[in-house]
Amino acid sequence: MLTRATGPGGGGRTSLSEILADFVARTRFDDLPGAVVHEVRRSFLNWLGVTLGAAREEAVRIAARVLAQADPAPQATVVGHRRRLDCAAAALVNGLAAHLYDFDDTHARSILHPSAPIFPTCLALSEHLDLPGEAFITAYVVGSEVADRIAAAVTPWHNEAGWHVTGTVGTFGAAAAASKLLGLSTAQAVHALGLAATQAAGLREMFGSMAKPLHPGKAAWNGLLAASLAREGFTSSLQGLEGRRGFLAVMTPGSNPDALTHDLGRDFEMVKNRYKPYACGVVTHAAIDAAIEARRRGIEAAQVERVEAFVHPLVQELTGKAEPQTGLEGKFSVSHCIAVGLIDGRAGPGAFTDARVRSHDAAELRRKVQLVVDPDMGEEAARLVVRTVDGRQETITVDLATGSLERPMSDRALEEKFRMLVEASVGRERTQALIDAVWSLGAGASMRDLARSIPVVEEP
Amino acid sequence: MLTRATGPGGGGRTSLSEILADFVARTRFDDLPGAVVHEVRRSFLNWLGVTLGAAREEAVRIAARVLAQADPAPQATVVGHRRRLDCAAAALVNGLAAHLYDFDDTHARSILHPSAPIFPTCLALSEHLDLPGEAFITAYVVGSEVADRIAAAVTPWHNEAGWHVTGTVGTFGAAAAASKLLGLSTAQAVHALGLAATQAAGLREMFGSMAKPLHPGKAAWNGLLAASLAREGFTSSLQGLEGRRGFLAVMTPGSNPDALTHDLGRDFEMVKNRYKPYACGVVTHAAIDAAIEARRRGIEAAQVERVEAFVHPLVQELTGKAEPQTGLEGKFSVSHCIAVGLIDGRAGPGAFTDARVRSHDAAELRRKVQLVVDPDMGEEAARLVVRTVDGRQETITVDLATGSLERPMSDRALEEKFRMLVEASVGRERTQALIDAVWSLGAGASMRDLARSIPVVEEP
Repeated sequence: MLTRATGPGGGGRTSLSEILADFVARTRFDDLPGAVVHEVRRSFLNWLGVTLGAAREEAVRIAARVLAQADPAPQATVVGHRRRLDCAAAALVNGLAAHLYDFDDTHARSILHPSAPIFPTCLALSEHLDLPGEAFITAYVVGSEVADRIAAAVTPWHNEAGWHVTGTVGTFGAAAAASKLLGLSTAQAVHALGLAATQAAGLREMFGSMAKPLHPGKAAWNGLLAASLAREGFTSSLQGLEGRRGFLAVMTPGSNPDALTHDLGRDFEMVKNRYKPYACGVVTHAAIDAAIEARRRGIEAAQVERVEAFVHPLVQELTGKAEPQTGLEGKFSVSHCIAVGLIDGRAGPGAFTDARVRSHDAAELRRKVQLVVDPDMGEEAARLVVRTVDGRQETITVDLATGSLERPMSDRALEEKFRMLVEASVGRERTQALIDAVWSLGAGASMRDLARSIPVVEEP
Repeated sequence: MLTRATGPGGGGRTSLSEILADFVARTRFDDLPGAVVHEVRRSFLNWLGVTLGAAREEAVRIAARVLAQADPAPQATVVGHRRRLDCAAAALVNGLAAHLYDFDDTHARSILHPSAPIFPTCLALSEHLDLPGEAFITAYVVGSEVADRIAAAVTPWHNEAGWHVTGTVGTFGAAAAASKLLGLSTAQAVHALGLAATQAAGLREMFGSMAKPLHPGKAAWNGLLAASLAREGFTSSLQGLEGRRGFLAVMTPGSNPDALTHDLGRDFEMVKNRYKPYACGVVTHAAIDAAIEARRRGIEAAQVERVEAFVHPLVQELTGKAEPQTGLEGKFSVSHCIAVGLIDGRAGPGAFTDARVRSHDAAELRRKVQLVVDPDMGEEAARLVVRTVDGRQETITVDLATGSLERPMSDRALEEKFRMLVEASVGRERTQALIDAVWSLGAGASMRDLARSIPVVEEP
């Protein structure tokens, strides 16, 4: 798929930026394996669910309101909102909403959340330009491949240095996707990637505040600007990524540049995505799986006398909070996660509101959970021994959590997650229509029609 | 002026972010010394000249065109352009234009160019909100103090690590200025500064491309977003600047935090600004001063047989290019600088176009310039020994270049620079009207009137 463009140094040397830019410019929908195309649909269903689910949240409403102050043309849909914004602004708000619940997908080799910055860019431009789903899918693939590979190349050093990779590297992904949708040449895409490099930002210091989900929103905005400028002839360094004072030199203490290009266009990183069944950190997921299984076996929460939870030491370390007081703290309490799994049979965003964490039944049940640290357990494994007041005992062992790469969420499970996030606010019928539209992506339908079919869920 | 707000840790400890935010929220126009107010006028005259002078340049036109694609409300003037844009977009374009010629002011303790990111923010908001010059001046002072102090605190480490301080730290300055104009409380301004920290970006790798001046433009856009979000209740870390994974920890290998707050509000950094009389690096300026003096003494370029230029080794190292081929290369050729100084009696942007560098008279004269490296010369000194074909010899020694802190450009010299940049495109009368308006800043006049009086210089 790649040709050898002549590098800035001449003589046939091809720079890393050029190799990536060439991949962006030359990839066609027909080149994409069916599994990759289907993974885009899965990823988009997940993205649309978490984004629409978060549409009413305060951070999203603030961002939409502030960006509407420019009174831009109604080019692109803000998911769940009535007022459309210009492409870049809509992408910003949607990128923020997508990451708000920490419920978006994760690239397994890094900890990048590729969909949060990249789908908003693809959706805004393909709606505005009225492009078919094929263009949308192709742009998403090149965007997420570029971002996944840069993220893999800087893992773990970049993260350890304090950067939020979804903000920083997400910018490259958004720029690559926008470059594709705007039809940039290889040479123009080199500049777009350079302009992405020099706008890349996002500090881990922001975790726990609204600024964290702002990062992928800004990545989308910045990436779209990068591609829009480059299309018009705006220049950057030709080596924004790999140059002496470029992204890799300045923003990561270490890197593995081979990850950028090895088998590019053949081995697709984006199929190595993980999806979260539960709206909390993955280390709790096996325990939640086990709790839901206990419920399925007929254990009633009110009958529980005691739960012994055997977990890897990391689970205790990261999520050992015994008496959480807020929704956010609930995510860091595997006891709470087990309790809501047993009571509700699920652990979506509703399990991690302040009200749910403070509710009597959850508080009572999690007090009955006893963590037993067992170094022999896997990090994504858990064993629950549940005893009831009438003497029944169930032992449930989960070796690999749902959503792990080895045990991915099925299409059906992703649909269920979507329903959990969306159905209460848009109703069963419109939920199903959205699911159907996503599974049909790439069969010629207009992305503008799809974007404008997303229901408005704002309070009146 | 400062009160002791309670820090996040409680107990009356005040964080660095809070001290800066409190300075932003509490500073009033009446607190400002007259010299500071006058320096804002000088700085704004310089800013307006370089920005209006660059209004027709390609990078500026591209950025304005791309941002107009959102079709925003015409809230704020793009200097020299007909089409107004929303505040943030106008600030972006004006920030880019201001830095395009590398002819803007420089904070002497760092190498920050404070005016490029901060004036655009102040101008856009005060035009849109129709505020008087007093508000504009006050916002500029708090913005530039915050930026100057952060820049001083991270000098030289941040720059050496590969960051373009005008982009990164400029974001804080723009956020502080916007916070002032939008009336943020101390608590809100803490969030605005945090949101600035996490958007800060700009790599030195971009030097030599259009992306370099984009940095202050983006700093203005990002800073304005930061303040606009914070005003509506959007949150960031309370320690975006000083936290464990904040700006200082992640983006600079070393820092001197004392520079952030020592004598804040009493010792104003912004009066330590330098202005450039010539549109090239400061190490060439003493030699240009000397060349212009030779011309003033009656030396005609056509009569010159030879010029010996005694300079510090750094001058040779940075600007030793003997045969420049492009406008940009001309800036790195002190021989070219001396030649145009002798021929034209000035060295504005017109001296560094491709055409001027390739012109016969400049090329011929610079071949007669011989650099003599002399470690005993100061870095900002030069001695020219000019010999003419008829045997005349003049020796001109400049110990301190015009524009150095010790020999600042006078108000009159700044007016001359403004005329050089502006008069050819807007005419003598309108040039004088702008100069008069700038010197009258802070006498109650409307900033909207001032902004909308800036002539359009776009080609029809």
